[in-house]
Amino acid sequence: MEQDKVSMDKPSKVITCRAAIAWTANAPLSIEEVQVDPPKPGEVRIKIISSGLCGTDKHILEGKNRVPLPAILGHEGAGIVESIGEGVASVKPGDKVLMFPLPECRKCRFCLHSKGNFCLKEKILSPTGLMLDGTSRFTCRGRKIYNLYGTSTFTEYTVVHEIVVGKIDAGAPMDKVCIMSCAVPTGFGAVFNTARVTPGSTCVVFGLGGIGSAVVMGCKASGASRIIGVDINEEKFPGARAFGVTDCLNPRNLKKPVQEVVMEMTGGGVDFAFEAVGLTDTMVAALESCHVSYGVCVIIGVAPSDSQLSFDPVLILPGRTLKGGVIGEYKTRSSIPKLVTEYMQKKFNIDPLITHQLPFEKINKAFELFRNGHCIRCVLLF
Amino acid sequence: MEQDKVSMDKPSKVITCRAAIAWTANAPLSIEEVQVDPPKPGEVRIKIISSGLCGTDKHILEGKNRVPLPAILGHEGAGIVESIGEGVASVKPGDKVLMFPLPECRKCRFCLHSKGNFCLKEKILSPTGLMLDGTSRFTCRGRKIYNLYGTSTFTEYTVVHEIVVGKIDAGAPMDKVCIMSCAVPTGFGAVFNTARVTPGSTCVVFGLGGIGSAVVMGCKASGASRIIGVDINEEKFPGARAFGVTDCLNPRNLKKPVQEVVMEMTGGGVDFAFEAVGLTDTMVAALESCHVSYGVCVIIGVAPSDSQLSFDPVLILPGRTLKGGVIGEYKTRSSIPKLVTEYMQKKFNIDPLITHQLPFEKINKAFELFRNGHCIRCVLLF
Ligand SMILES: NC(=O)c1ccc[n+]([C@@H]2O[C@H](COP(=O)([O-])OP(=O)(O)OC[C@H]3O[C@@H](n4cnc5c(N)ncnc54)[C@H](O)[C@@H]3O)[C@@H](O)[C@H]2O)c1
Ligand SMILES: NC(=O)c1ccc[n+]([C@@H]2O[C@H](COP(=O)([O-])OP(=O)(O)OC[C@H]3O[C@@H](n4cnc5c(N)ncnc54)[C@H](O)[C@@H]3O)[C@@H](O)[C@H]2O)c1
Ligand SMILES: [Zn+2]
Ligand SMILES: [Zn+2]
Ligand SMILES: [Zn+2]
Ligand SMILES: [Zn+2]
Repeated sequence: MEQDKVSMDKPSKVITCRAAIAWTANAPLSIEEVQVDPPKPGEVRIKIISSGLCGTDKHILEGKNRVPLPAILGHEGAGIVESIGEGVASVKPGDKVLMFPLPECRKCRFCLHSKGNFCLKEKILSPTGLMLDGTSRFTCRGRKIYNLYGTSTFTEYTVVHEIVVGKIDAGAPMDKVCIMSCAVPTGFGAVFNTARVTPGSTCVVFGLGGIGSAVVMGCKASGASRIIGVDINEEKFPGARAFGVTDCLNPRNLKKPVQEVVMEMTGGGVDFAFEAVGLTDTMVAALESCHVSYGVCVIIGVAPSDSQLSFDPVLILPGRTLKGGVIGEYKTRSSIPKLVTEYMQKKFNIDPLITHQLPFEKINKAFELFRNGHCIRCVLLF
Repeated sequence: MEQDKVSMDKPSKVITCRAAIAWTANAPLSIEEVQVDPPKPGEVRIKIISSGLCGTDKHILEGKNRVPLPAILGHEGAGIVESIGEGVASVKPGDKVLMFPLPECRKCRFCLHSKGNFCLKEKILSPTGLMLDGTSRFTCRGRKIYNLYGTSTFTEYTVVHEIVVGKIDAGAPMDKVCIMSCAVPTGFGAVFNTARVTPGSTCVVFGLGGIGSAVVMGCKASGASRIIGVDINEEKFPGARAFGVTDCLNPRNLKKPVQEVVMEMTGGGVDFAFEAVGLTDTMVAALESCHVSYGVCVIIGVAPSDSQLSFDPVLILPGRTLKGGVIGEYKTRSSIPKLVTEYMQKKFNIDPLITHQLPFEKINKAFELFRNGHCIRCVLLF
């Protein structure tokens, strides 16, 4: 393959390779030849081996979440370091790595705080699509192309800042661990770090996609006695049961609002509710499903840009907690490579989250499967 | 006094005494002769010695929070047990007691949960104004009068359920401890139980009334390094500084929204924000004042009935926490009498919260002082 030849050149050269460009929302991605600049100081060029498709990528393509376009999307990637810029010390060419949509610079106030993970070095809520120096490393047909969250994994090669790169075990299965860049830590961390689910507790999970399924796994691992799964796509139910869901609810087939049904099923509300859909309606339903006095509701889903979450504050007053978290509140580089090691030690199994694998060229087919609700995680192989 | 004579009668008799009746909202209270029924099984009749005026009473009188009227308001009372109904075991005539707007039945699912305090036996969010058997113990000019939160303290005698009564130290100063029925535990508990303020942390308190001042005291006792106080009434600032506020802000005198000023002052937001006003605008401002990744916002204020709290869910997503709590999430009967003992042991001092004391007859004068913002807590003495 052309890119293999190129990657053996000196690292200071531009690489020409294939990438999937999102020129606009609501259109198929277009696989094109792109030029990938060499890494500048503090940057790393990575040969992508695999990439998951995340609900966030889907939302962006549907125009629900606005990011600068044209861009190379994808933020759930595993790869091998091709070359490094000046001053990069934590990885070297040949290292297996994950790249995270949330950096960990270890210097900003957020990183230095014991609980903070929302590193100041990436504006994930209003992405610039550019590297920290305000420029881009991708060019397509002479035009500069934006990145996504400083990551961009729908490309054979990408350039990222060292602060988003986590070196992982040399033996890690590269066709699987890409989903540990986003889906797995987001779901696990929502359970272990944000909610802190307790043994014997009751849980409800809204949305049984990649994130929601990882949440279910985390709840089960935490010893929850009951895990109610809510989705409008019943195709998700058999898999969800296998992950640990004890009761499946399809709000469209209920005579009452789903939160009322959850209230009745649990005699007053669950201990922990998770929203992994990304709609304000399901956020309110999740909040209303949890116990009025001690229920904790964790918002994981990303609502469409400029949404308003509206509810009577008496929902909160008696003691409910509403929380959020990005990438499961993990400090990404410090924590996620350890999760990979634990997975390799078989402390947990993420494989069933990957229901499909397709070659990179079939990316539009993968998004079609995803949009039609036929997969949990579909992984692209490069 | 007439009621002293009456109280020496046999306990099964109706007592005739004076009470302040709220016939409608937006009108002065009317001090009238009322008949107070004897306590039924599980009930306690109490001679009120002192009562605080709480912001919640003020909101009810202003028509902001709807409760059944005509009623005897007041829920921050200290008194002496006059007589007990059948089966009452935790107190006897002559005991000094506090009565709480939130019961602790010790039997319902909420009470039995380690973290729950929102006992099912009082519908504090949609009060019935009646005892648990659906009847009232107060009559005025032949008409049944509702209670408030099963308490009613603006009366010389009241009847409450045993499950709202906490026996306190025989030596407790009865002209002061009434504010430990609501203001003190609400503020302290918001700090110690709900937010869990940590040493060295930064805090902002919206509303420097009785509740907000108790919050400030709690933040100071927790070792907060900076406590920003926000109020539109600058008359509150000198007292607030004495309680521990380090910086005072009047939103009406700022060129930018107060949350932006707090963000700048603290380099990215406080660790803990408290809303002790009762308006959705200040709730959003409090949420926006706290650190995007690890800030915790505690809602204490009671918004007007049927309010909507509206904000972009990206405020929550990066890791903020929004929580509420009633009476500081204390299990009232089990915890608050211990707080009284600690106060008597001089572990903390609540006296400066009481800026005014007036005889019960002057209740309308007390509400006038309160509405005009001239007092923190005004205590009525009977
Ligand atoms: N907080 C974070 O760090 C983070 C990280 C990754 C993804 N996300 C967000 O998490 C959300 C889920 O992502 P995903 O990858 O699991 O997507 P997904 O598409 O795989 O899963 C979403 C699921 O929600 C279901 N759903 C849709 N509408 C519903 C409704 N009204 N009620 C119940 N279920 C409904 C869908 O059928 C689907 O199964 C997205 O909003 C994504 O942007 C957040
Ligand atoms: N959660 C609970 O258990 C609980 C218990 C008691 C009281 N409360 C509620 O707490 C709130 C405060 O009660 P309180 O007794 O301290 O009342 P208060 O009237 O003594 O204090 C309210 C303060 O807020 C200030 N204020 C008004 N508008 C403001 C604004 N826009 N910005 C900033 N400050 C403003 C006022 O000047 C006043 O100092 C009320 O809503 C009350 O209903 C809740
Ligand atoms: Zn993702
Ligand atoms: Zn950082
Ligand atoms: Zn009160
Ligand atoms: Zn109870």
